Amino acid sequence: MEDLVIKNAKILTMNKNSDILNNSWISVKGNLISGIGNMEAPKAKKMIDCNGKLVMPGLINVHTHASMNLLRGVADDLPLQEWLFNHIFPIENKFINKEFVYWGTKLAIAEMLLSGTTTFVDMYFEKNEAARACEDSGIRGIISWAALNLPTKENPDKIAKKSEDFINKWKKSSLVIPAVGPHSVYTCSEKLLKKMKEVSDKHSCIYHIHVSETEKENKEHFKKHKKSPIKYLNDLNILSEKTLAAHCVHLDKKDIEIIKNKNVRVAYNPESNAKLASGIAPVRVLLENGVTVGIGTDGVASNNNLNLFEEMKFASLIQKANEMDATVLPAKKIVEMATIDGAKCLGLEKEIGSIEKGKKADLIVLDTKKPHMFPEYNTYSNIVYSANGSEVEIVIVNGKVLVENQKIISFDLNEVMKKCRDIVEKIRKFKEASSQK
Amino acid sequence: MEDLVIKNAKILTMNKNSDILNNSWISVKGNLISGIGNMEAPKAKKMIDCNGKLVMPGLINVHTHASMNLLRGVADDLPLQEWLFNHIFPIENKFINKEFVYWGTKLAIAEMLLSGTTTFVDMYFEKNEAARACEDSGIRGIISWAALNLPTKENPDKIAKKSEDFINKWKKSSLVIPAVGPHSVYTCSEKLLKKMKEVSDKHSCIYHIHVSETEKENKEHFKKHKKSPIKYLNDLNILSEKTLAAHCVHLDKKDIEIIKNKNVRVAYNPESNAKLASGIAPVRVLLENGVTVGIGTDGVASNNNLNLFEEMKFASLIQKANEMDATVLPAKKIVEMATIDGAKCLGLEKEIGSIEKGKKADLIVLDTKKPHMFPEYNTYSNIVYSANGSEVEIVIVNGKVLVENQKIISFDLNEVMKKCRDIVEKIRKFKEASSQK
Repeated sequence: MEDLVIKNAKILTMNKNSDILNNSWISVKGNLISGIGNMEAPKAKKMIDCNGKLVMPGLINVHTHASMNLLRGVADDLPLQEWLFNHIFPIENKFINKEFVYWGTKLAIAEMLLSGTTTFVDMYFEKNEAARACEDSGIRGIISWAALNLPTKENPDKIAKKSEDFINKWKKSSLVIPAVGPHSVYTCSEKLLKKMKEVSDKHSCIYHIHVSETEKENKEHFKKHKKSPIKYLNDLNILSEKTLAAHCVHLDKKDIEIIKNKNVRVAYNPESNAKLASGIAPVRVLLENGVTVGIGTDGVASNNNLNLFEEMKFASLIQKANEMDATVLPAKKIVEMATIDGAKCLGLEKEIGSIEKGKKADLIVLDTKKPHMFPEYNTYSNIVYSANGSEVEIVIVNGKVLVENQKIISFDLNEVMKKCRDIVEKIRKFKEASSQK
Repeated sequence: MEDLVIKNAKILTMNKNSDILNNSWISVKGNLISGIGNMEAPKAKKMIDCNGKLVMPGLINVHTHASMNLLRGVADDLPLQEWLFNHIFPIENKFINKEFVYWGTKLAIAEMLLSGTTTFVDMYFEKNEAARACEDSGIRGIISWAALNLPTKENPDKIAKKSEDFINKWKKSSLVIPAVGPHSVYTCSEKLLKKMKEVSDKHSCIYHIHVSETEKENKEHFKKHKKSPIKYLNDLNILSEKTLAAHCVHLDKKDIEIIKNKNVRVAYNPESNAKLASGIAPVRVLLENGVTVGIGTDGVASNNNLNLFEEMKFASLIQKANEMDATVLPAKKIVEMATIDGAKCLGLEKEIGSIEKGKKADLIVLDTKKPHMFPEYNTYSNIVYSANGSEVEIVIVNGKVLVENQKIISFDLNEVMKKCRDIVEKIRKFKEASSQK
């Protein structure tokens, strides 16, 4: 007896053959996909009839700062420096604590699940709380504790110790995959960057870092080190297939060569990069060089949502406009980037990112009968260019149903909203007091 | 006794003071807003309690081709010429008829209403059917019958007569506002362009035309006429405050000067322009020159949806990225463009586009309690950067409730889907047969 069977579905497998199966079933046993077929479905404890609906792999958000959901819309339409130093940092300095991170992450998880994201890559502070939020809600999280020591000059060994303690605490979790999170070349000393690489090597975990997000960052780095951030990281022997480099907006030819040769994975965050006017990442060239690129939303403070359906469309359209070429980043490639290529970014392509027997059961069911999803001449096109995330009806992570009938069933959303409202009221008062100064 | 009262709402008025009213009510009598207040609400035949919800003016889509909804995803990720000549035109040539236009427009209206659009500007063929679809569904439509005679050389007088008959037939409608729709400078002869201007003057209706959508259009026009499309139209004495120029992607300084001086209104279609790799319209410069710019989705074949919430975010973000300036097109301006500025584009700013006593009751109610809409430090930011259109719960046009509880109640959506499925099956077979040739 299977634990769960989804039947009568159209299945977008995202497997190597890009199979799209009509009128088929998926069976789940424990946390794994135990079978896929189009003949009679096996018996199961729970049967879900998906008549006319679409099942696809859960989406993978390869870069965000989840608890920043509590800062949605706190400051917008401002130059990056003013946004960061006059608005975001002062609030973070005062408010980041365990409560903020736990409830903020839960709010982000609610938003992600409801819009079809089943795995996210997170970098922030107080990460035991974020990891706990993942386990309590059932979502898959690749969680890194942001490491930085400029200008604070905090001891790299002490920071690395905190990351290692975090890794040791969570490495046996079935949902949380701990990672290291050296923030960037401009907020980490050389010693800290290298120290975090040692931790990453020792525990075989993702080295998640912001790279070349803005022109300013590159210019200042060139001034100080006479080379680009990528070249600098490469000369420190840090780059490898474990490196997940977020943004990569401003790369030169040599940078791309290094990224290609070292098999660095890139997290493309098109909406955040546009909203902060950082620029447009050279994704076409990266893909032509065989680089693996996933899609991230970045934090809500610079997006302002975590909706990967919306991000997929934006990811394609801004490149077409920028390159003046409508053939760039076609719909199917974009869906790959948000599923199987996202999994490759995390070295998890054997476990998640496609619907195949033996893989983890991370699945989403879309109601494609809505007027804005009809007709469906091309399923990939409709997912990327027509969907907005509100089609997501059922979300399954690690074999467990977390969202049913567009409602979260794995935790109490009302409690999350209540706790978040309390925190937000305090932030609002602090903002008002600050603006009166 | 009022006909309808919406109470306990947060009201984004979009009036001249940009008032945002908390815990207030709006009363409706007939098709008009009869009052707004925050004391005790008047009695009404129908009361809607909006506790914690947001009411705003219905959105205005200033450029689309509604019945092209039947071609959603029929061809994507292709160069414009291949897309248009090898895919769209052959299907249109075979399939455009009254049935196609009526049911395709109804499908588009369903999508628009469900995502908060209450007025749309349409250009296509068989427009009596589109007008009938507006009246049958209750949406407000500015409908123009596409006029073109290149290369067909059809007689301009004959084409103008068809437009005039259409205008005379619908000019007394309470929902349909007929307009003229000379397609473009490259598909209309000089005589036809001028003839349509006469019709526009005679009936005081909008002159809706595509202008400078692509570089190719401009280059070919320069070759033929030694001037830009805008300059050419101006020299023909066609431009006025009645001109609604769609796209305006490729404008030079002189064009912008003419647009400003003649008070031409511009329909900005950022997603379509990006998807077809046409480019990015110079909206910042147009606004700095005091030009009125509204937001359009264009047809679904090049978008691929009619969601103005999604379009609003894209409209801002692509400009910020392109200008490398995060302050460009801030959230509040974008909401204005999709409401009151859209109304100004149509000369309807005294009737729609804001919530004010005496204006038409075109209202939408958003459920802002969803996780992706919380917190709400800034209402404009949340509408533009966080919403995706799925928040729309209630839609009222001309005083009549058309959508309630996210369901269309003014017509039978199932019938529309069934009729559209029949047409789509035929298109699918034609496509298959064509691709086998």
